[in-house]
Amino acid sequence: MILKNTMNRQVVLVSRPDGIPQASDFAILQTPIPAVADGQVLVRNIYLSVEPAMRGWVSAVRNYSEPVAIGAVMRSFTVGRVVESRNPGYRVGDHVTGLLGWQDYALVDAAVVLRKIDATDLPVSTALGVLGINGATAHYGLLALGTPKAGETVVVSTAAGSVGSCVGQIAAIKGCRTVGIAGGARKAGLCRSAFGFDATVDYKADGWQQALAAACPQGVDVYFDNTAGPISDAVMERLNVGARVVVCGTASVPSWDPAPIGPRVERHLLVKRARMQGFVIFDHADQHEAAYRDIAAWIRAGKVKYLEDVQQGIEHAPDAIAGLYRGDNLGKRLIHIDQA
Amino acid sequence: MILKNTMNRQVVLVSRPDGIPQASDFAILQTPIPAVADGQVLVRNIYLSVEPAMRGWVSAVRNYSEPVAIGAVMRSFTVGRVVESRNPGYRVGDHVTGLLGWQDYALVDAAVVLRKIDATDLPVSTALGVLGINGATAHYGLLALGTPKAGETVVVSTAAGSVGSCVGQIAAIKGCRTVGIAGGARKAGLCRSAFGFDATVDYKADGWQQALAAACPQGVDVYFDNTAGPISDAVMERLNVGARVVVCGTASVPSWDPAPIGPRVERHLLVKRARMQGFVIFDHADQHEAAYRDIAAWIRAGKVKYLEDVQQGIEHAPDAIAGLYRGDNLGKRLIHIDQA
Repeated sequence: MILKNTMNRQVVLVSRPDGIPQASDFAILQTPIPAVADGQVLVRNIYLSVEPAMRGWVSAVRNYSEPVAIGAVMRSFTVGRVVESRNPGYRVGDHVTGLLGWQDYALVDAAVVLRKIDATDLPVSTALGVLGINGATAHYGLLALGTPKAGETVVVSTAAGSVGSCVGQIAAIKGCRTVGIAGGARKAGLCRSAFGFDATVDYKADGWQQALAAACPQGVDVYFDNTAGPISDAVMERLNVGARVVVCGTASVPSWDPAPIGPRVERHLLVKRARMQGFVIFDHADQHEAAYRDIAAWIRAGKVKYLEDVQQGIEHAPDAIAGLYRGDNLGKRLIHIDQA
Repeated sequence: MILKNTMNRQVVLVSRPDGIPQASDFAILQTPIPAVADGQVLVRNIYLSVEPAMRGWVSAVRNYSEPVAIGAVMRSFTVGRVVESRNPGYRVGDHVTGLLGWQDYALVDAAVVLRKIDATDLPVSTALGVLGINGATAHYGLLALGTPKAGETVVVSTAAGSVGSCVGQIAAIKGCRTVGIAGGARKAGLCRSAFGFDATVDYKADGWQQALAAACPQGVDVYFDNTAGPISDAVMERLNVGARVVVCGTASVPSWDPAPIGPRVERHLLVKRARMQGFVIFDHADQHEAAYRDIAAWIRAGKVKYLEDVQQGIEHAPDAIAGLYRGDNLGKRLIHIDQA
């Protein structure tokens, strides 16, 4: 066994956050790695994912998944390499992805592995971003729920983020005018320079509502909403008849217990015959592969670009979610684990 | 000409209401009836309709239709009888319906007439209610947007009203558990006794939120929303995964300028993968006839009942909308014009 005496660093949840999880809600434990049982695989993680949705995964507020238990390893998608296998479906050296947690090594039943990552020209890290749930979220949310048509105006919030930047680029591929909303001049600039949005709005700048109006001279046909809050309030005012609002995330809302108040939306929906639709990408696993095929082809054609914010070392994991909500990152946030 | 020297009483808008139109926003004028020109018909109105939506029709706030002009006859569906025709498509004695306005006589181009009402066993007044836009609204909104499935729970607000009562009965026909929300013990009682709701909630009674919870032990799959406001807030808390919210009206909100505030809905939509969809029934005229056929058959089979609140005399029209918002009526409010 190559792993004799190797310890596993695990980032575990030690307290139930009230709102956004902070570094102090986690601890890093060193634990021995048990023997691999029949049917199991041992995966050496390479990249750990950091998602805005993790706020919900650790929340006690009713949600779409059971909260991570106190004392448990933080739930996370990872990319790793099989280093030991007692399952005929996996061989040492296979690259895999799945909910393998914030830890150096994951010892799991093979069913926990989501899929093997085929040898490809694209980096394995993409399996956590544009070729993972972020890309699947952008693809399904925009195309299946937003149903954009050429010539329509698509507005995206958190447009510089992993999901938002992908949404904007797919909308452009479909022939739409794309308007990205991001926080700060640097992210707004990135939306134009890296992701090709037709117009961007920096919601931290004075007069951003006027900038939004100017960016949408023909109104808004599709709003891909990652924020809720005052950003969404301003977009809702500009909906066209028949508009579709895709509710993907609520990054601007620090806590939903109790729900914050804001302008009621019913009149917009009624007068504009508009639709607001929430979704959770895990419900649509049957459509992920098709999304990855599309997006991989668009990456190779230079039509979809992505950006990664890689932090070196598992010791960065505890503060990584809070950092997302502070807006520290540019692009998909990943934790890279040294393979030495 | 039978109408020589006959004067036409017309209810005209004299001021732009701020919120709900009051009696003082209207005046009744006596005007002569011009000669019928080629292609026109002269219709003697029998019933005038009174709709909650009329609030929007007279509002200067951006809407789905041009506001009724100051000095113009109040826009309204009516049922009447052709008394003079210079159009080959209509004969004296034909019963017709259309946006013929709050007046004794409507002199209009034939194109303004929506349709002839076939001789039928059902009263002509139904063309303004269950066999008019109220029924079409209930049928389209519930079936096309709410997509109820047998065994699901359907909650309806303003459940004793013309639209709400029809929604509840159609949902029952489709095998759903039906929960009606209405204001006051009398209307709540009517929901059970006349319209057969499985459970009712009187939102004016203490502890109505608990009553709502008790009425929906399996949660809420479809919410047909005629009110918005605190009633909707309570229903949104109980949505099931995959729920559909049909936004039909906002009767509980006195003014949308500015929009009132309330709990934000995004988290409900996201966690429950739920959809909120607004609609305006005038967009779906191609589906009205099919709706009327269904509903007429259900009326004859005793499966859909309707209630009319008929006021005698056009002098009741000016206060009739305000009365709806006060909750004065039981059933579809109509103004009957004496045919003497």
